[in-house]
Amino acid sequence: MTDTATPQWPPFLSLFAQELTQNLTPKLLTQLMRSVGTQFSRQHTLHFAGTVADMQKGMNDVWRELGWGRVEIRDAQSWLVLTHHRAPLRTVFGPDNLTWAGAFLEGVYEAWMHQLGADSHLRVTAAGSVDPADPSGTMVFLFGK
Amino acid sequence: MTDTATPQWPPFLSLFAQELTQNLTPKLLTQLMRSVGTQFSRQHTLHFAGTVADMQKGMNDVWRELGWGRVEIRDAQSWLVLTHHRAPLRTVFGPDNLTWAGAFLEGVYEAWMHQLGADSHLRVTAAGSVDPADPSGTMVFLFGK
Amino acid sequence: MTDTATPQWPPFLSLFAQELTQNLTPKLLTQLMRSVGTQFSRQHTLHFAGTVADMQKGMNDVWRELGWGRVEIRDAQSWLVLTHHRAPLRTVFGPDNLTWAGAFLEGVYEAWMHQLGADSHLRVTAAGSVDPADPSGTMVFLFGK
Amino acid sequence: MTDTATPQWPPFLSLFAQELTQNLTPKLLTQLMRSVGTQFSRQHTLHFAGTVADMQKGMNDVWRELGWGRVEIRDAQSWLVLTHHRAPLRTVFGPDNLTWAGAFLEGVYEAWMHQLGADSHLRVTAAGSVDPADPSGTMVFLFGK
Repeated sequence: MTDTATPQWPPFLSLFAQELTQNLTPKLLTQLMRSVGTQFSRQHTLHFAGTVADMQKGMNDVWRELGWGRVEIRDAQSWLVLTHHRAPLRTVFGPDNLTWAGAFLEGVYEAWMHQLGADSHLRVTAAGSVDPADPSGTMVFLFGK
Repeated sequence: MTDTATPQWPPFLSLFAQELTQNLTPKLLTQLMRSVGTQFSRQHTLHFAGTVADMQKGMNDVWRELGWGRVEIRDAQSWLVLTHHRAPLRTVFGPDNLTWAGAFLEGVYEAWMHQLGADSHLRVTAAGSVDPADPSGTMVFLFGK
Repeated sequence: MTDTATPQWPPFLSLFAQELTQNLTPKLLTQLMRSVGTQFSRQHTLHFAGTVADMQKGMNDVWRELGWGRVEIRDAQSWLVLTHHRAPLRTVFGPDNLTWAGAFLEGVYEAWMHQLGADSHLRVTAAGSVDPADPSGTMVFLFGK
Repeated sequence: MTDTATPQWPPFLSLFAQELTQNLTPKLLTQLMRSVGTQFSRQHTLHFAGTVADMQKGMNDVWRELGWGRVEIRDAQSWLVLTHHRAPLRTVFGPDNLTWAGAFLEGVYEAWMHQLGADSHLRVTAAGSVDPADPSGTMVFLFGK
């Protein structure tokens, strides 16, 4: 690797996350992360999506560009289930901090849904990873009441 | 870029930095960043350095590995002047946040100096970038009393 | 004054407020104070009030008990105007911090209004003190859309 | 009690303390409180004290004025033991928050000792209350290495 390599952020971010948890509670960190997600959605706005498949494609265009994995959206009657594969949050923030770090994605998905015209009362909530021991970074979110 | 690309952090980090400045003062953020720097130095310990050139080489081994630019150390009588070229902090955190974001490097350099045996009363302080308008990310630090 | 005098808090609180502003932004402090106000309203619940005069009386029973001044409520068509006389916040927190410190009262009044059955979309906002130079601690709040 | 009664702060402070613990860690709150103590000592400076008895008297003049109980200082060879009786912190902040709230007194005592000429390396540390179940508010601090 030469001097002009792309800067790596994970070593810094991991330590920064630890320092933040030494000073701020998970409650406040969750709130900050959700807000960061909302801001992110404003910088990466989605166009109109007529179908769940369109929606998924629009979101994955953003994630692909960033190398942040991909989302799969399933319509489960009164909910949309969003399964985000290979989210990089777990690796960098650590499993202990995943609850608050994952609030970033909650914020992004909720704001995207509202951008696309969903009722402003509907919320995104984390449903936990498919398997807590799974290091792959899969995270599941529910969108609904 | 494929789905398995290396995740990019700068877009997230820039927004996270903005959110932090909305809630925490530069004073507190400076303190947190310095502490992150100290932790970083413990994860990337330097071996004995008999000369300033050795010291510089040891530090640059770490920065090269991370793609974080390179440092040049100059002995200026009662000070060591550390000029860090291409530090990625400015690009990601923005010029407005460089004072507190740069405290990360202050913390790293100070802890490294103490690891190498320097008197614990000696401190690293930022001397500002060589040219405030310079977007290259050069940051200068002084080590001394 | 003997050893068993009632402990005085203002000297401590003034310094505590200054320390908080050194570390947390007015935005975060405002949010915290509003939340403290909401909690306060839960500890000092108001009974049913059929008229504005009843409402005012219920609130002043709480403030009188605490020596926190008194509120006067005026019905101004689409708003209720709440004028809080002799609020002790200005003296203790200082004029510079009154915006965020006053969010405590915003939180109290808003939660009280909702307790009494007001539409949950209606909000309390600070209208500033009647006269910025007035040291008496009068603070005015509007309740409405 | 009339409208012009002295404002009571404990109900507000108790809720404020709870809100702070919802957002900031005990580690950060301890640091803030110590700093508040240092500032307090600058507003209530002690005059020269030739003896431990003088020192105790100077401190108790401050505490008496505020109704904050009284301190008893005992010379225990390499330590000074400061026993603060009827500190109002426990009642207001609650036993769960006493560790960080008590850092206020640590900061005050340490800064006072340094004002009086003690070696700047010597520190005040909390020794816990004499009896954890004791609601009287007695707090013990050690001053030494």
